[in-house]
Amino acid sequence: MGAGQDQADETTLLQCLYGVGFEELRIPNAELRMFLSLSREVDLLELERITTAVGWRPRPVRRVRRALRHSLMVVGVWCHDPRLPRLVGFARCIGDGVINATVWDVVIHPAYQGVGLGHGLMAFVVKRLRTMGVEHITLFADPGVIRFYQNQGWQMEPNNQRCCFWYAC
Amino acid sequence: MGAGQDQADETTLLQCLYGVGFEELRIPNAELRMFLSLSREVDLLELERITTAVGWRPRPVRRVRRALRHSLMVVGVWCHDPRLPRLVGFARCIGDGVINATVWDVVIHPAYQGVGLGHGLMAFVVKRLRTMGVEHITLFADPGVIRFYQNQGWQMEPNNQRCCFWYAC
Repeated sequence: MGAGQDQADETTLLQCLYGVGFEELRIPNAELRMFLSLSREVDLLELERITTAVGWRPRPVRRVRRALRHSLMVVGVWCHDPRLPRLVGFARCIGDGVINATVWDVVIHPAYQGVGLGHGLMAFVVKRLRTMGVEHITLFADPGVIRFYQNQGWQMEPNNQRCCFWYAC
Repeated sequence: MGAGQDQADETTLLQCLYGVGFEELRIPNAELRMFLSLSREVDLLELERITTAVGWRPRPVRRVRRALRHSLMVVGVWCHDPRLPRLVGFARCIGDGVINATVWDVVIHPAYQGVGLGHGLMAFVVKRLRTMGVEHITLFADPGVIRFYQNQGWQMEPNNQRCCFWYAC
């Protein structure tokens, strides 16, 4: 029983908490550990706490629950605590899993912004969609985050394509 | 047995061909009847014939089949023939069915363009997504069709949102 066993025990614990395919995101603060998970269930009130903190308008929890259930991929960013991990970021995708996917609801809690979590989250999302074989990933960027996406290799409106929106009244 | 029975027989025939919830699109040429269907199976080679005719690059049939299977909604525009309806238009949506949907692959065969089929198809798609309760519908418009969508009430880049694309290499 030594370092190898400790390592195996930790991996088992992390898989229990974050599911198969979790990834750790390194951040400058060495006292905190951050994990990306595709399967740890997101508490919708905890998610709302984050979206409210960044100023998004509230949405009925019942509708958000259904939307998450029918999303192609749901990713949580978790601040590690072996007893109770804390949700600090989120993204989800809709799509057919083959040709098209659209990324929605990318958010990092303001208290955890500026340390690379958003970058790591988006890199994870793109990597997982590529692993599925998705050819074409899209998202809609508010003016304040256009540079954030451009810096990660996203193309703005290739071939002068424009995005069109239709909202329920 | 009279006009009422004939009408009932025709409705039964049309439901057999186009499924529940089909709609007829009126066009100027009274000799042709056009129907929108959510459930009549789309022959992928017939679809490719249309997408090739409008100049889209070919996609592997196997991938298109999987993408259609995992789409939220697939709509065919059919030129009516009681023996063998002919596919003349198409659109599909991906989405969570609640909050977000994105419309892809909107196409009308060139021989049938200019008679309102595209407009009727999009109105049908939006109506069906609204019936589901979807709040927010998006699509990406090539420069040549931006006015087409604007004329139907779609908003271009509200709040200066920009569309970002990421393509598989």
